[in-house]
Amino acid sequence: MSYTAPIKDMLFVMSELANLDAISALPGCEDATRDTAEAVLEENAKFVSGVIEPLNHAGDKEPSYWHDGQVTTTKGFKEAFRQFADAGWQGLQHPQDFGGQGLPKLVGTPCVEMLHGANLSFALVALLSDGAIEALMTAGSDEQKATYLEPLVTGQWTGTMNLTEPQAGSDLAAVRTRAEPQGDGTYKIFGTKIFITYGEHDMTENIVHLVLARTPDAPPGVKGISLFIVPKFLVNADGSLGARNDAHCVSIEHKLGIKASPTAVLQFGDNGGAIGTLVGEENRGLEYMFIMMNAARFGVGMQGIGLAENAYQKAVAFARDRVQSRDLAGSSGPVPIIHHPDVRRMLMSMRAQTEAARALAYVGAGFHDIAHHHEDEETRAAHQAIYEYLVPVIKGWSTEMSENVARDGVQVHGGMGFIEETGAAQHYRDAKILTIYEGTTAIQANDLVGRKTLRDGGKVARHLLAQARATATQLGELESGDLAVIRARLEQGATDLEAVVDFVLANAKSDVKAVFAGSVTYLKLAGIVLGGWQMARAALIAQQKLSSGAGDASFYRAKITTARFFADHFVAQSTAMRAAIVEGHAGVLALPEEMF
Amino acid sequence: MSYTAPIKDMLFVMSELANLDAISALPGCEDATRDTAEAVLEENAKFVSGVIEPLNHAGDKEPSYWHDGQVTTTKGFKEAFRQFADAGWQGLQHPQDFGGQGLPKLVGTPCVEMLHGANLSFALVALLSDGAIEALMTAGSDEQKATYLEPLVTGQWTGTMNLTEPQAGSDLAAVRTRAEPQGDGTYKIFGTKIFITYGEHDMTENIVHLVLARTPDAPPGVKGISLFIVPKFLVNADGSLGARNDAHCVSIEHKLGIKASPTAVLQFGDNGGAIGTLVGEENRGLEYMFIMMNAARFGVGMQGIGLAENAYQKAVAFARDRVQSRDLAGSSGPVPIIHHPDVRRMLMSMRAQTEAARALAYVGAGFHDIAHHHEDEETRAAHQAIYEYLVPVIKGWSTEMSENVARDGVQVHGGMGFIEETGAAQHYRDAKILTIYEGTTAIQANDLVGRKTLRDGGKVARHLLAQARATATQLGELESGDLAVIRARLEQGATDLEAVVDFVLANAKSDVKAVFAGSVTYLKLAGIVLGGWQMARAALIAQQKLSSGAGDASFYRAKITTARFFADHFVAQSTAMRAAIVEGHAGVLALPEEMF
Repeated sequence: MSYTAPIKDMLFVMSELANLDAISALPGCEDATRDTAEAVLEENAKFVSGVIEPLNHAGDKEPSYWHDGQVTTTKGFKEAFRQFADAGWQGLQHPQDFGGQGLPKLVGTPCVEMLHGANLSFALVALLSDGAIEALMTAGSDEQKATYLEPLVTGQWTGTMNLTEPQAGSDLAAVRTRAEPQGDGTYKIFGTKIFITYGEHDMTENIVHLVLARTPDAPPGVKGISLFIVPKFLVNADGSLGARNDAHCVSIEHKLGIKASPTAVLQFGDNGGAIGTLVGEENRGLEYMFIMMNAARFGVGMQGIGLAENAYQKAVAFARDRVQSRDLAGSSGPVPIIHHPDVRRMLMSMRAQTEAARALAYVGAGFHDIAHHHEDEETRAAHQAIYEYLVPVIKGWSTEMSENVARDGVQVHGGMGFIEETGAAQHYRDAKILTIYEGTTAIQANDLVGRKTLRDGGKVARHLLAQARATATQLGELESGDLAVIRARLEQGATDLEAVVDFVLANAKSDVKAVFAGSVTYLKLAGIVLGGWQMARAALIAQQKLSSGAGDASFYRAKITTARFFADHFVAQSTAMRAAIVEGHAGVLALPEEMF
Repeated sequence: MSYTAPIKDMLFVMSELANLDAISALPGCEDATRDTAEAVLEENAKFVSGVIEPLNHAGDKEPSYWHDGQVTTTKGFKEAFRQFADAGWQGLQHPQDFGGQGLPKLVGTPCVEMLHGANLSFALVALLSDGAIEALMTAGSDEQKATYLEPLVTGQWTGTMNLTEPQAGSDLAAVRTRAEPQGDGTYKIFGTKIFITYGEHDMTENIVHLVLARTPDAPPGVKGISLFIVPKFLVNADGSLGARNDAHCVSIEHKLGIKASPTAVLQFGDNGGAIGTLVGEENRGLEYMFIMMNAARFGVGMQGIGLAENAYQKAVAFARDRVQSRDLAGSSGPVPIIHHPDVRRMLMSMRAQTEAARALAYVGAGFHDIAHHHEDEETRAAHQAIYEYLVPVIKGWSTEMSENVARDGVQVHGGMGFIEETGAAQHYRDAKILTIYEGTTAIQANDLVGRKTLRDGGKVARHLLAQARATATQLGELESGDLAVIRARLEQGATDLEAVVDFVLANAKSDVKAVFAGSVTYLKLAGIVLGGWQMARAALIAQQKLSSGAGDASFYRAKITTARFFADHFVAQSTAMRAAIVEGHAGVLALPEEMF
């Protein structure tokens, strides 16, 4: 059983929750009609199921390997990437001017989900290129754009993101890599970068490294970091490749998961200096890197959702197939384990979390499109703020939930889940990176508290809560039992989330550590309540469709059932999470360090 | 940094919560004084840290391997097992008549925790031997005892448990292995068994397989299963080894974790039949196997606790050592990450869950000792019933929590956690088997609902709840803020658990699937409330010690802080768990099978 893209749910979310029709009415988004979106999704689904997903297990069994500075990727990856690029998938969301298709993020996002769902290790190379493209588009010079963008957008080359150094980890203030100006507009780069995803590979003829480094007179800390383009091969004026640059892969990591994705240690400048060019202005590197990171963080959230969908499908297939023990309500012999209530509970839990996270992420993608394409500046700004509030939630919560879903996926398989050939264990291992890279969940939570809640005094958070409550009010007008429960849970969830936002705002100055002691729980609570809100909207729309007799009744009934499950099993946790934050912060910090 | 046995906490729990003094006053337990217990724990700690733990990472990197029917275990395992056996650790809890030390379970349990904490893969061989010893002690004939017990107790041989077959999984009713009587008191065994832990290895000269099989006229289902001893080498009358038996290892599994522990596929009777002897009476095999399984299930719970402790220690060491980013409250430069609130939250969460699970398990071990050694029959029976209620909770909840703790352990390490050489990822992989083998969490939960709650009409559950409430009342007499919160959370937890027990009892006949839809959540709720009860008892005692000025004040203050954290962050979840069970069961089962 291989991965089947959940196109029906994707289209439902795009059309009904993320308002695809309104997006396609925006200037520059005219191509994104329902019909086009459906055609794109179907084509993409065919491609990832046929070409990309079959390489997933192979990549785990025969990972990419390093020898003498070269990385050989898993057999088949190079050819698959060529097909991926040639079909235009790398350029789906990027401007037509640079060889892309120029489709809005709302249409690109399901394709990203599918690619990650099919093969996380493979998809990473595309994710990193997307980030590099966004950064260059925003901050690159015309010459840099002319040189690098088209090859990246068309997948002729790939991009990387070089932040982490051995002594610094996530602390960019501690970056030591040096950039020495050569007087000719170029710089020589010296330093070591670690954890560089696809920092070296054999899939394309060139690799465009975006590297954080310090110029000689840079101020200390994050205010003295600049961003440089350091290509693996220098690029001649005519676009052809020149000399090999002094940027070399000295090893790759032996990892728990995503084994086919080479995680490189890159050494810059050991043989005289790697040639780089400055992106934008000196000392503004962090700002540009954040453009890449925000794109990448949203993408990592999609990795979580894609992986969760795949793990869910694998578990369902196994549960239908595996016959064991009688039905509790009586049966003449053993039955498929999907009949057993706890297996059903795990499958529902996997399904409900995946659907809720997908709905929230796609709605976020829609906000991104409005923020970039709407004619009204205020509307753009308002939606940009909402999108930025959602990014850490989409990244942090979707990936945390994907760990739980992958875990349940193994559990549904029982003993077979622990055997590597089954494939469930690979999801469990692969998922563990998602809550770590592109900023751990704690770093996402710091962002949510600091930049996204404190800075605007909770304005965006309250706006979203008001909208959630409006949905609850609409639900109150319908009388079905499920919808009434969904409404009550959503209202309680909104109350609890608001209490937490109030707590964050009230205590950030007087007791900053108490606030950050609960930041990850706040992030998860925001995910559950805002994801629950999307599920409530979905249930409401499904109920309206059922009442009007339009469309696929069993799909709509399933949506209501899944929303109800999400309300009872996840949104219902809101009060305990609020207690952990508001009443439980003291216990987080009370134990003296030496007593651990 | 290597594993250091948490002897101080172990002795506190043994003495103050599990009432070691009362246990050592029981007939046959006179040796188990506090002094002896402390000496035994210290000796064991030295042994596991010096000999067993150093092999843990090696076993993961260079797993045991199969070649031509033989399994070669990781280098060093054979010698370590010899030292383990020669020092008498295998026989710690077994009768002196058969070469053991005859210490009560309460003293043996911390040693089991340490062994598993140090090296899960190694410890498994001892765990399986323990189970085989218990089964033979209860159901073996005098001749079988004379032949097999001493070599098992002294670690000259090891034991295995052969239940699972490829087509049957956990469903023992589907066991097909045949046992044909030969007329001379022996049987010929034919069949395939899978997932046999240490089913083949090179650490001892013989292996005693205990095998479930059916005799020719056996009734169908679980009532027709008998238990047989099938040694790898037949044993002569004088105890020397005879011919190689027809029981062969045809392969071992490639697993997610516990890689040094060989998981064998055993083929019985491919060359004429494996010779076995019946244990006890025909068709009572399941009953005897349950003796093994109950011992093994308790042991797997201890695996979870030991692994969690090790993961916690590794995370603490990393968090002290790793310097990154400034302190939120201000610092002149980067600080060790243990200063960051979310790291602190994860460490507290790991610590609190491990301590709560340890306390509940040791208290359970004490009940086991009373059930086996008390002079009064009624007291024995009452404690046996409580112990049996607790076994699925200790197995299921401690292992589920160990997954979470191992996960947080990786997370504390950040990117380094995903790199295999750090060791945190090994815990994450190893932990995943614990909720599966010896019965998945769902199977433990079925046992908790069916045999342990419905059968006695909730009597034991209510007895435990009454005791928990008595602790809450005692807490109410003290005025400290932490204790007042602990009391309120415990009272609410007890109320919620009681509501769930009522729900289970009220609905088991009318809607059995609704009850079992919440069985795993019920098990976890029982773990949290009963574990929280033990933490509340610990806090109460700590407060009394502080008031009296006796003992180590910082240890007692830490215990209260940890109990408070457990109350706010775990016991506080009780109401949401109750809602998921009592109100959320319909959603578990509502989605039609074809809609998954």
